[in-house]
Amino acid sequence: MIKAAARQPVPARRADAERNIAAILEAGTRLLSADHTASVAEIAKAAGVGRVTLYGHFPSREALVDAVMDHAVGVADAVLADESLDTLPAPEAMARLLRSSWELLDRHRRLFMAADRALATERIREHHEGPLRRVERLIARGQGDGDFRTDLPLTWLVTTFFSIIHSAAQERETGRLAPDEAEQVLTRTMLSLLAPQR
Amino acid sequence: MIKAAARQPVPARRADAERNIAAILEAGTRLLSADHTASVAEIAKAAGVGRVTLYGHFPSREALVDAVMDHAVGVADAVLADESLDTLPAPEAMARLLRSSWELLDRHRRLFMAADRALATERIREHHEGPLRRVERLIARGQGDGDFRTDLPLTWLVTTFFSIIHSAAQERETGRLAPDEAEQVLTRTMLSLLAPQR
Repeated sequence: MIKAAARQPVPARRADAERNIAAILEAGTRLLSADHTASVAEIAKAAGVGRVTLYGHFPSREALVDAVMDHAVGVADAVLADESLDTLPAPEAMARLLRSSWELLDRHRRLFMAADRALATERIREHHEGPLRRVERLIARGQGDGDFRTDLPLTWLVTTFFSIIHSAAQERETGRLAPDEAEQVLTRTMLSLLAPQR
Repeated sequence: MIKAAARQPVPARRADAERNIAAILEAGTRLLSADHTASVAEIAKAAGVGRVTLYGHFPSREALVDAVMDHAVGVADAVLADESLDTLPAPEAMARLLRSSWELLDRHRRLFMAADRALATERIREHHEGPLRRVERLIARGQGDGDFRTDLPLTWLVTTFFSIIHSAAQERETGRLAPDEAEQVLTRTMLSLLAPQR
């Protein structure tokens, strides 16, 4: 009897936990992307779970922001999947990848501000492993095709992409970069940085 | 009597406070530049003050890191003062400013890691107002001389300097950038980013 009783609730509890975690990550992405100071209590409320339940899954604000970041970048990475990145001439493909990355980042720039405050930059970069693999593959192809410079290490060029697009998000948030100039500024910056040197 | 007694100790207490604060900032710069996880207790010990005294001046690790950052950048800014930055051709002056900035940042890169964990990127940038004014003046002169591009906003070009040099410090700390290649990589990156576009 005890065995049977103990066996039954487990899948139900697991399904509950999954549902709660999914709701927390969705609410966290939504609230933090609107206001980077959104509190854990507000996120719990929006997710329809109690604070005790939330803290059971994510013991600190840092742990919550970390999980929300991972979730949001995972979704973004799926959005970035685009076969033409492998077929268009590399500079055109780069402009396209910058445009779609910026569109995603700009929408979630306050979540990035929340992550900037709660997590080390290196940790934020780790979360971007998926998208950065796309950037790396594209730059490597451009180098092979003679469209991109080869006098700087590939890993460094990937880093500049990460660093420059996130700087643009900061500049956009502080008002130092106007919304309507960000995309062109990013494209010009990145393409002149990647261009083969005379 | 009371008046006289109350008047005397104040300058002495102020002098003590000044001495303690200076010792804390010096020890904080030294310890955090060696190990970004150095604790408040370790910094108090190295400064020769009690923890209560330290917390009296800096109520949190964040406040301490913030003050240490401000102190270290202030010293760095004085080191960067160099008249030739105003007279050399702008690209040469830029290479020189990059070299001296990198030399300073590389030596203090763990302090920067500590700041990255404790402070928002925007706050770290605020601390760099002094050095960034030098960068801005130099880029503006290079634009006027026709040596640097004018198709991107001046504030954005200053931001890329800040962002790229700090990325290099991160890359150096994680081992993705070799110590002996950092300076050349930085110079090439920044000069090709500033070059007038064909």
